[in-house]
Amino acid sequence: MNLKDKSCVPCQGGVPPLTLEAARAMLPRVPAWELNDEGTRLSRTFKFSDFSQAQTFTVKVGDASDAEGHHPVLTYSWGYCTVVFYTHKIGGLHENDFIMAAKVNALT
Amino acid sequence: MNLKDKSCVPCQGGVPPLTLEAARAMLPRVPAWELNDEGTRLSRTFKFSDFSQAQTFTVKVGDASDAEGHHPVLTYSWGYCTVVFYTHKIGGLHENDFIMAAKVNALT
Repeated sequence: MNLKDKSCVPCQGGVPPLTLEAARAMLPRVPAWELNDEGTRLSRTFKFSDFSQAQTFTVKVGDASDAEGHHPVLTYSWGYCTVVFYTHKIGGLHENDFIMAAKVNALT
Repeated sequence: MNLKDKSCVPCQGGVPPLTLEAARAMLPRVPAWELNDEGTRLSRTFKFSDFSQAQTFTVKVGDASDAEGHHPVLTYSWGYCTVVFYTHKIGGLHENDFIMAAKVNALT
């Protein structure tokens, strides 16, 4: 099953985050996303040719993440939008973060 | 004239940024905004009770800044939106940044 077609499962904490090795192993399934060195954050920056296009895309990402109840940190300004996924309750990454990254890629 | 009623003037660079002292002197005119230690960034974080409200407010700020052609860096997620103004072309703050901060305060 494609990651983008899965749904985020509720994550109440109490489960360990993905290990760095597990996160690295999943990374090829979400092209163009990057892991931080610790394997606790998944991020991608998208480029645009003005502010309005950056904002429109950011809101699409926001709406898609709100529908799944799993929200990234969204940062944008003229010409770019950076999306960062992280599962606060477990202090690192969960499969949900990769599912959301795949869904965001499908928006482009 | 209230800052919020002024318009941003085009800033093509070639003018010096506000000094730290000048920026500090203007700060009381934009309640709840903060200067960084160097006086080169003007920021404010707004709190909300969910993601959707944070996103709706962020877009209002984005639209207001796009109308003036002076764009902040906008960062939001569940329950908050952080707005940072800075004039890239002069490497610091311009009166435009304070005008925009006052306009953002008027949106709340």
